[in-house]
Amino acid sequence: MKYSTIYKDALLGDVLPFWEENSLDLLNGGYFTCLDQKGKVYDNDKFVWLQGRQVWLFSMLYNNLESRETWLGIARSGIEFLKKNARDEQGNFYFSLTCEGRPLIQPYNIFSDCFAAMAFAQYAKASGDHEAADIAKQTYRNILERRRDPKGIYEKSTGVRALKNFTLPMILSNLVLELEPVLQPDQVENTLDTCIDEVMGVFLKKDSGLIYENVNTDGTLNDSFEGRLINPGHGLEAMWFIADIGVRRENVALIRRAKETVLRLLDFGWDDRYGGIFYFMDAKGYPPQQLEHDQKLWWVHLEALVALAKVYQLTECPKIWAWYEKVHQYTWTHFPDPVHGEWFGYLNRQGRPNLTLKGGKWKGCFHVPRALYQCWKTFEKIENKNTV
Amino acid sequence: MKYSTIYKDALLGDVLPFWEENSLDLLNGGYFTCLDQKGKVYDNDKFVWLQGRQVWLFSMLYNNLESRETWLGIARSGIEFLKKNARDEQGNFYFSLTCEGRPLIQPYNIFSDCFAAMAFAQYAKASGDHEAADIAKQTYRNILERRRDPKGIYEKSTGVRALKNFTLPMILSNLVLELEPVLQPDQVENTLDTCIDEVMGVFLKKDSGLIYENVNTDGTLNDSFEGRLINPGHGLEAMWFIADIGVRRENVALIRRAKETVLRLLDFGWDDRYGGIFYFMDAKGYPPQQLEHDQKLWWVHLEALVALAKVYQLTECPKIWAWYEKVHQYTWTHFPDPVHGEWFGYLNRQGRPNLTLKGGKWKGCFHVPRALYQCWKTFEKIENKNTV
Repeated sequence: MKYSTIYKDALLGDVLPFWEENSLDLLNGGYFTCLDQKGKVYDNDKFVWLQGRQVWLFSMLYNNLESRETWLGIARSGIEFLKKNARDEQGNFYFSLTCEGRPLIQPYNIFSDCFAAMAFAQYAKASGDHEAADIAKQTYRNILERRRDPKGIYEKSTGVRALKNFTLPMILSNLVLELEPVLQPDQVENTLDTCIDEVMGVFLKKDSGLIYENVNTDGTLNDSFEGRLINPGHGLEAMWFIADIGVRRENVALIRRAKETVLRLLDFGWDDRYGGIFYFMDAKGYPPQQLEHDQKLWWVHLEALVALAKVYQLTECPKIWAWYEKVHQYTWTHFPDPVHGEWFGYLNRQGRPNLTLKGGKWKGCFHVPRALYQCWKTFEKIENKNTV
Repeated sequence: MKYSTIYKDALLGDVLPFWEENSLDLLNGGYFTCLDQKGKVYDNDKFVWLQGRQVWLFSMLYNNLESRETWLGIARSGIEFLKKNARDEQGNFYFSLTCEGRPLIQPYNIFSDCFAAMAFAQYAKASGDHEAADIAKQTYRNILERRRDPKGIYEKSTGVRALKNFTLPMILSNLVLELEPVLQPDQVENTLDTCIDEVMGVFLKKDSGLIYENVNTDGTLNDSFEGRLINPGHGLEAMWFIADIGVRRENVALIRRAKETVLRLLDFGWDDRYGGIFYFMDAKGYPPQQLEHDQKLWWVHLEALVALAKVYQLTECPKIWAWYEKVHQYTWTHFPDPVHGEWFGYLNRQGRPNLTLKGGKWKGCFHVPRALYQCWKTFEKIENKNTV
C-alpha cells in the first residue's frame, strides 16, 4: 500500500470517527478529551489547550481537505464554548474549565492563548465569522504583550538564574503563519525572522547540534537541570515548522540546516536498546529530573514522522529516508490500537502502553490527526513526483 | 541475621558513610544532594526540603543514637547555610538556592518551611543553640499562619473547585511532635486532636478504606483527577505517624484503625504482577494523570516497612506480619545498590532502576536513613519482647 494511503485511511477511517463519535459534549458544547481505551468519557473537565486544538483541527480539515458541514459544526461547538467561557476579564485564556464552562485553573501561562489563537483564526477562515477573526487578532496581540513575562504573577523563579525557554519561539514560528490572514504582511515576516534567529541561532547549538529547552538570556548554555534539558520531540516538531518556512522563503540553506538537525536529534534521542525516541534527556548524560524521561510518547514519534517526510520530500536525502523507515516501523507497530481504534499516547521504555487512555489532560484530538494529514499530503507530493 | 541487625548495619555501615563522604559542601556549607550512582556530584543546586531534612537527620541521630561530634558538625554546616541564605524578608523559606546560597525558586508553598522547622528544632535540641530554637518557633508560627492559603499568590486554582490537601495535616501530625520542646503543651495536644480528626476522619474514607489526597472543603469526595488521586505511600507514612500518636495517647482504638488502614492501602496499592507498591492510583481505576504512576519509589517502600514494623510491634497481628515479610522481600532485593552502596530511588514497574541516581531534587539523606533507624529500633523492641 502507498504511504499516502496508509495515512489517509488512518485519518479518515479510524482517528476522526473516534473523536467524532466520542468527544462531543452535546449538552454544553466543546469537547470531552478524557477518553479511555474504548472511547468512554472518564472525566469531563475541559482543558483549554485541547479545546482550542480540536477546534483548529476540524476547521483546518474543513479549510484544506473538504468543506464538510459536520466538521464545521464540530468546530463551531468548540468556538462558542471558548467564546462564552474561556477568557478572564483581561482576555487571557484559562488553563481549564468545568464541563459547563466555569473556570478552574487560572491563565498561568500563555500556551492556552496560543492554541486558542490558532483555533479562532482557522475557524474564522472556515466560517467567515468576523468576531472569531477579531478574537484571534486580540489574542495574538495579548500573547506578544505577555511574551517577556509569560507566567506573570505565577512565575516562581527569583530571576537570579534568568533563563529563556524554547517553547514560545517554536510555537510562534507556526502560529504566525496560522494567523497570517489576520496580520499585516511585514509583521508576519519580521516575526518569522525573529523565530528563525531564535530557533536556529540561539536554542540550536553548533557544538552539540542539539536544541536546548532553556538557555541563559544572553543565549549561552546554563549548567543546571533546566539548562541541560533536551526534548528531542520538541526539536523535531520545530524542524518541520522551520522546513515549512524554508519552503515559503525558498531558503535552501535553512532547509539543509533543518535536515542536519533532524538527523542529529534522532541520533541523540533514539533508544538503541528498545527502539523509539526518548521523551526527556540530559545534554550531559546526567540523570534528568523527569521520572517519565524514558517513556515513548505518541506526539514525539508523529512529529518525527512529519519532519522526516517533509525533509525527505525537499531533499531526497537517503539518510533521512533510512530514519523515516526506522521511525515508521516503530511508530506504526506500537502506537495504533488495533482493538479499539485511535492511538495509545504513553508507552513505557519497552514499548508497552503505560496508560491505555486515548485522551486526557494533554492528549486530545490534535497530534495524531494533524500528523496523519501532514504525512498524507507530503507523501502525495513524493509519490506524484516519482510517477512523473 | 536479626532484623534489627540488618537495619543497623545498613544505616551505620552503608547509608550514613555514603552521605558523609559525598554530600558535604565544605566550601559553602550545606549539602550537595544530586549524587550519581557512585556518589559523584552532578548538580550543585540546593533544594531547601533536602537541606532541612539532612540537618534533621544528623541532629536526630546525635540526639537519639550517639552524640558523635562529626554528626553535630554536619548538622551545623546545614543550619548555618540555612540561617544565612534560605529565608526571604518575611521569613518564608525558598524552595531552592544556588550552591553559594543565592535564591533560585521562591517560597511558593510551605513545605520548605515544614522541613526547616523540623531541622531547626532538632538541631536546637542537639546544640543548645537558642537562635535555632527561636527560628524553629517562628517558622512553625508562620506555617500555621499560611496554612489556609499555603501557596499564596502562586495558587493557580480559581476557587471554583475548592479542595483541601492531605499533605499538611499529615506533616503536622509529625511536625508538632518534633516541635514539642519549643511549644506550649496545650498547643501540641490541640494540634494532635485536629490532625487525628483530619487524617482519620476526613481524608480516610470509611466506604473504601482509602486515604484520598484531596477532598472538598466540606470533606466530601470530589470526582476529578485531583479528587480521585490515591498515593499509597503517603497514606502508609501517615499511618506510622498516627501509630506513634496512638502510643503517646495510649489509644488502642486509634492504633487498630491505623492497622486496618495499612492493610487496606497495601491491598489496594500492591502490584500483583511485578510486586512493589504503585506510586499513584486513581480511586475509581481510571487512568491517573501522572505518567510515573506505576513506578516503584524508595520512600514508599521504606515508609511501608516502618508502618508495618511499628504496627506489628503494637498489635502482633499475623496479617501485618505477612505483609511485612512480603514488602521486606521486595524492598531489600530491589532498592539497595550492592555495587556502589546506598539505595536506588526510582524503579520502573518491572523493578529495574529507571534512574540510577542516589540523590537529586527530591531524594536526599532522609527517607532511607530515617526508615532504617525507625525499623532498627522497632525490631529491637520486638526481639527483646520475644526473648523475655
